[in-house]
Amino acid sequence: MKGFKFKGIHAGIKKDGKYDLGIIFSEKPASAAALFTRNRVVAAPVVLGRERIQSGLCQAVVVNSGNANCFTGEKGLEDARTTARLASEYLGIPEPLVMVASTGVIGAPLPMEVIETGLHEVTSDMSAEKLEEFARAIMTTDKQMKISSKTVSVKSGQFTITGIAKGSGMIKPDMATMLAFVCTDLDVSALSLKACLKKSCDLSFNRISVDGDTSTNDLVLALANGMSHVVIEDSDDSLEFQKALDHVLLELATMIVRDGEGATKLVKITVAGALSPEDALTVARTVSESNLVKTAIYGEDPNWGRIIAAAGRSGAEVDPGRMDLVFGDAQLVRQGVWLGKDAEKKAAAIMKNPELDIVLDLNLGSFSDSVLFCDFSEEYVRINADYRS
Amino acid sequence: MKGFKFKGIHAGIKKDGKYDLGIIFSEKPASAAALFTRNRVVAAPVVLGRERIQSGLCQAVVVNSGNANCFTGEKGLEDARTTARLASEYLGIPEPLVMVASTGVIGAPLPMEVIETGLHEVTSDMSAEKLEEFARAIMTTDKQMKISSKTVSVKSGQFTITGIAKGSGMIKPDMATMLAFVCTDLDVSALSLKACLKKSCDLSFNRISVDGDTSTNDLVLALANGMSHVVIEDSDDSLEFQKALDHVLLELATMIVRDGEGATKLVKITVAGALSPEDALTVARTVSESNLVKTAIYGEDPNWGRIIAAAGRSGAEVDPGRMDLVFGDAQLVRQGVWLGKDAEKKAAAIMKNPELDIVLDLNLGSFSDSVLFCDFSEEYVRINADYRS
Repeated sequence: MKGFKFKGIHAGIKKDGKYDLGIIFSEKPASAAALFTRNRVVAAPVVLGRERIQSGLCQAVVVNSGNANCFTGEKGLEDARTTARLASEYLGIPEPLVMVASTGVIGAPLPMEVIETGLHEVTSDMSAEKLEEFARAIMTTDKQMKISSKTVSVKSGQFTITGIAKGSGMIKPDMATMLAFVCTDLDVSALSLKACLKKSCDLSFNRISVDGDTSTNDLVLALANGMSHVVIEDSDDSLEFQKALDHVLLELATMIVRDGEGATKLVKITVAGALSPEDALTVARTVSESNLVKTAIYGEDPNWGRIIAAAGRSGAEVDPGRMDLVFGDAQLVRQGVWLGKDAEKKAAAIMKNPELDIVLDLNLGSFSDSVLFCDFSEEYVRINADYRS
Repeated sequence: MKGFKFKGIHAGIKKDGKYDLGIIFSEKPASAAALFTRNRVVAAPVVLGRERIQSGLCQAVVVNSGNANCFTGEKGLEDARTTARLASEYLGIPEPLVMVASTGVIGAPLPMEVIETGLHEVTSDMSAEKLEEFARAIMTTDKQMKISSKTVSVKSGQFTITGIAKGSGMIKPDMATMLAFVCTDLDVSALSLKACLKKSCDLSFNRISVDGDTSTNDLVLALANGMSHVVIEDSDDSLEFQKALDHVLLELATMIVRDGEGATKLVKITVAGALSPEDALTVARTVSESNLVKTAIYGEDPNWGRIIAAAGRSGAEVDPGRMDLVFGDAQLVRQGVWLGKDAEKKAAAIMKNPELDIVLDLNLGSFSDSVLFCDFSEEYVRINADYRS
C-alpha cells in the first residue's frame, strides 16, 4: 500500500509500559470519510472529528489509548485541539488535516505533558513497516492486535486496503465501542468512500455484540490517498472495491468479537423467516445481548429455551409454535416441538467447538439477518470489575 | 390472616431433594386478580391462568418449581389442566377455581407421575403455619425465601396482607421473572383488587432489574377471601389498603433484587430532572441493565463514566454538560464537571457498603424515576452457565 506510514510508542499514559500513542500518516492529503458513535455523550475527539471530517480531507491521525478524553469539558476539547496542533507542527502539515482519537478511561483529563513529549517521538521515524506498532498502540483490554489487509485488482491496476481496529468490551451496534482505521491507496472521492464505508459498516461493525454497551468514542475512519493511481472505472470496479472493503471490515469485526472481553466462543445467530427485516435484526440482537443465552453458551449447555424466551421478549412478531432452532447441524426444535434428549446431546457436543452457528427460523416471512457475538464468562466480570484499579 | 392454608413438599421434580411442589388454599373462594408476563412466548400455566382469571374467582393455587412447563406444546397445556383437575378432586372444589404456576427449566415435559403423587400429599394437612414450606417450594436459584406481611387497621376492623415471591435471575420489567402470590382476608372485589395490584406492581416488580431478561412464566396473583369481614368504606380506607399492598410488594421486590443471582450489592438508581417521565425511566433502566455499570459496582469502583455513557445511549434527552451525579452523599459530577480524585475516594468508600444510592440529575426538567438493581459478579456467570447440569 503506497504512501502510508505508521508508528506506535509508549508515551506514558498507561502505567504498565504498554504502547499508548500511535500515528497514521499519509504522504499526501487523503480523501477521508468517517462514522461516529451514536451515543449522546461523546468524547472530545469525536466533537473535533465531526468538525474536521467536513472537509473530506485528512493526512494524519493521532490515537492514544489509556484515556478516552471523554466527559472532560472545555478542557478536553482544548486538549484534543492541542494534540492535533502539535502533531501538525511536528509533521509540517496544516492543522485541519490532523484528526485525533482516544480510547480508555472516561472522565480523567488527558496527561498533556506526557502526550506532548510522546508526539515528538511518534511523529519521527514513521514507516510502512510500523503498522503493527500502531495496531498495538491503540489497544486497551484487547488481547490481540487487529489488522486485516486485502489487495484488489481492477482495470487500471492494483490497490490495497488495510484496516486496523481495537475493541473488546463495550461493543454493540450502533457503533461498536471501538476504533477502526481503514487506509487505501485507491484514488476515490470522499463522497464515494463514505457511501461504501457506510455499507460495509452495516454488514460488519453494526452486526456484532460483546456486551450491549455503546461507547462514547467510537469511530471508523477511512483514508484514501490515491497514491496507487488506480481509479474506479465502472460498476464492476466499484463492486470489487465494496467487496474488498466488506471483507476487511468483517474480518476486523470478527476479530473484535473473538477477542471480546472474557470470550471463549464466537457465535453467529441467524434469524430467518421473519416478517420484516427489522424483526429479523431485532430478534438476532435480543438473542445476542441476552446474558442468559451468553452464559449458557459459555457453559456449553444447549439451553435453547433461553433463545426462544429472548425471541419472545424482543418485541418482534413470533409464534413459538412455528419456530425451528438449529445449533450447527443439530436441530433442537422443529415447528415448535422439542426434538428430545438425543438432539440436545448432539448440540452439546457441537458447542464444545470454539465457534457456533445458531439458526432460528421463525417460519413467518422471508427476511433474515445475522449478528456475531461471544459468550459471557467470569473473566468478563473480572476484567470490568477492576478495569481502573 | 384468616382462612388461608399452605403447604410445600418435595415431590421429586427437583433431583436434589429440595421442596418443589406447593399449594395455597383459601377456605372460601376468593376474589382474584393477576398480572402476567409480557413475553410472547408463554408457559402453559400462563395460558391456563389468563383463561381462568376471567371469572375473578380462585380458591387454590398449585405451584411447582424445577420445571417451567414452557414450550411444551399441547401436551404442556394438557398437563397444566390435569394438575388443576387432580388438585380440585383432592380438595373437593370446582376445577375452575384452581390456578397453577410453574417455574424452572424451559422445554422439558412436566413429570406427571411425580406430580400426581405429590398433589395427593400436598393437598392434605395444609395449615396457616406451613406458609414457609410453600415459600420454599417455589424457589429455584433463590437463596432466601421471600415473605412479607402487613396487618392494617381500617374503620371496620383489621385485615392482613401476606405476600410470597420467588425470583433471582431472568428479572426485569415488565414483569420480572418471578412468581408472587398475595393473600389477604380483606373483603374486596376482583376489580378493585386488580386496579390496586397494577398500581403496586408498577412501583415494585416493574422497577427492578437483575439481568435484563424477561421470563415466560411471570405471574403476580392476588387473592382476597374476605374472611376478616373487613371492607373498604371510603377513600381513606382505600388509601390504607393501597399503601399496605405497595409496602408488601416493594418489600418482596427488594428481596428479589437482594437475592439476585450472584448479587453482592443492592443499588437504587434515581434519575431526576428529566424532560418527561418516560425519559426518567428509560435512563434509569438503561443504567440498571448495563453490564459495565454492574461489574464496576461489583468491583466497588466509582466508574461514573459508565453511568454517563449508559445515559447517553439510552435514547432519552440528555446533556452531559448539565448532569449531576451523586453516590450516597458523595457528589462525583456537578453540572457536567468531574469533581476530582477526592470525591472519587469518598464514593469508593461508600461503595463498600452492601447498599448504594445513585442519583443522576439530568437538570433538564422536573420528572424523576427509580429502578432497583444489583451488581454483576462471577457468581452470576457460574450459576447460569450450569443451571441445568
